Amino acid sequence: MKKKYPKIAVFGGGSWATAIVKMLSENIDEIGWYMRSTSVIEYIKSDQHNPKYLSSVEFDTEQLLLSNDINEMVNYADYLVFAIPSAFLSQELKKLNVSLEGKIIFSAIKGIVPESGLIVGEHFHEKYNIPFEDIGVITGPCHAEEVALERLSYLTLACKDRKKARVMSEMLASRYIKTKTSDDIVGTEYAAVLKNIYAIAAGVAHGVGYGDNFQAVLMSNAIREMKGFIKKVHKMKRNINNSAYLGDLLVTGYSVFSRNRMFGNMIGKGYTVKSAMLEMSMVAEGYYATKSAYKIKQENGAKTPIIDTIYKILYENKDPKKEFEKLSDILD
Amino acid sequence: MKKKYPKIAVFGGGSWATAIVKMLSENIDEIGWYMRSTSVIEYIKSDQHNPKYLSSVEFDTEQLLLSNDINEMVNYADYLVFAIPSAFLSQELKKLNVSLEGKIIFSAIKGIVPESGLIVGEHFHEKYNIPFEDIGVITGPCHAEEVALERLSYLTLACKDRKKARVMSEMLASRYIKTKTSDDIVGTEYAAVLKNIYAIAAGVAHGVGYGDNFQAVLMSNAIREMKGFIKKVHKMKRNINNSAYLGDLLVTGYSVFSRNRMFGNMIGKGYTVKSAMLEMSMVAEGYYATKSAYKIKQENGAKTPIIDTIYKILYENKDPKKEFEKLSDILD
Repeated sequence: MKKKYPKIAVFGGGSWATAIVKMLSENIDEIGWYMRSTSVIEYIKSDQHNPKYLSSVEFDTEQLLLSNDINEMVNYADYLVFAIPSAFLSQELKKLNVSLEGKIIFSAIKGIVPESGLIVGEHFHEKYNIPFEDIGVITGPCHAEEVALERLSYLTLACKDRKKARVMSEMLASRYIKTKTSDDIVGTEYAAVLKNIYAIAAGVAHGVGYGDNFQAVLMSNAIREMKGFIKKVHKMKRNINNSAYLGDLLVTGYSVFSRNRMFGNMIGKGYTVKSAMLEMSMVAEGYYATKSAYKIKQENGAKTPIIDTIYKILYENKDPKKEFEKLSDILD
Repeated sequence: MKKKYPKIAVFGGGSWATAIVKMLSENIDEIGWYMRSTSVIEYIKSDQHNPKYLSSVEFDTEQLLLSNDINEMVNYADYLVFAIPSAFLSQELKKLNVSLEGKIIFSAIKGIVPESGLIVGEHFHEKYNIPFEDIGVITGPCHAEEVALERLSYLTLACKDRKKARVMSEMLASRYIKTKTSDDIVGTEYAAVLKNIYAIAAGVAHGVGYGDNFQAVLMSNAIREMKGFIKKVHKMKRNINNSAYLGDLLVTGYSVFSRNRMFGNMIGKGYTVKSAMLEMSMVAEGYYATKSAYKIKQENGAKTPIIDTIYKILYENKDPKKEFEKLSDILD
């Protein structure tokens, strides 16, 4: 804890925010941590761990500057890491009365902001005039639960300004976190968003009775579909088989703990969208992502049979079994 | 069962051979089926199923021409499908006293012939003078067990002569089997061989304690490594993310039932190669594949850190934990 790092704050109280604070705490003496709940803040202060998420992780509270005042935390830090579910981002940002100008904003959110239909980086750019040089993405493949267990994981830090990606990379790297940088901020963020749709697809497939052979075909079609989609959105040289794209797809698409996969599984088994959401008492991020991605592909003409299928099932009430039968004729 | 197909015989009595006979039996009135064991042949004749593999599959024995005389079966058929484990192929072929000239030979074997160090197609070409136009490959992603359950699966049939690939494709396609053809006979066969090494790697990683985040990174590095290796062996235009390459890697690398993954897992947990083989009472095909692939990469200069790591662990008695620590620094 010798090196001089910029002041950093993490926004969010969920498992991924908690994991990021843990990773930062390996390197940084003082970490700002914003979350809404004062009772959780008090709990962390007295008991050294988050009572609701990754509760096995013990924090040295002397390193933590906890606050439920988002303006205080934005004022405090130079690097802001947002790890709030995309569905709640807008309402949190409405609380801001201080400027984001000059702040470096990293998104650790894998989703579409429902109100704007934008990925998080684009949302900050369009709604808050943040230049793309000051926007970054933190992406996996990385389950927060394995960070808690200190199981070796790899992160990709993307920013148009590679220097800022490297700063973030140094703050997060540790004996159990390996990092690399990228300048593909749009591509890595879309990959992180789209993979949730493909995880829903994997869940639906399982729910309607397909097996491992089909799952492998589905994933190999998904990565090709993702490549085509992202190329339409932002053309640049990228290897879609890098960990930030393919790895991130696999860790989610093959995880039985993925909320998106679980949601898809329930849909495949015959739950309605509403009842699946009620049952899970949360919204799978891929649900919003599907709507936005479908709209985008209608505009740019990307070929996305898997996304189309999920869209029809979730938003047009089509029968999962029949739609997957049609899809299975297109996959190869 | 109206269409006129060429005469076909399947060689082998294991689960994959049994699955192939089942798939063929959806289309073809008479299928030659060679296996060594006369008692298994008698059992199938009287009880309509293979007692040892995929025993839930019921055959109409009137469709089966069973024989334990390999020469009789070679004589009978125009299309020969070999599904004998690569370790036993040589000794079976030694029994031949009839010519293979003019026969179309499809390999459903995913392995290296230990005696020649060649993939099966090359082995038939070099040792039996079969022209490459008469050699084909049947590849997945396809667990035999899911064929038995009639779960939708996809096969790729590769042959330099696309017509022959199409004939084989028509014989295998059914309501639960979708097929496509390819002319990349060398690439698809190497992919099927190399994936077993990567499945061993996935097993070792799990055995020494890595989790799902690492597994996703390992697989995304594996497909890039495979691409580079195959390109060195046989350069042609191919999309490595097609199901025959990436899909086949995933179905094996993510399967907890994969023998290769199980073997790797035992090695990772500290078993010696010998004791792991004894415990499993069989040889994981990836074991031989590792030796051959390592030799080939030494000759052609492909960069294969994962294969190198497995080679050092299996053939140079290196410590799995230490080797994977080194590997984890190279992966990204």
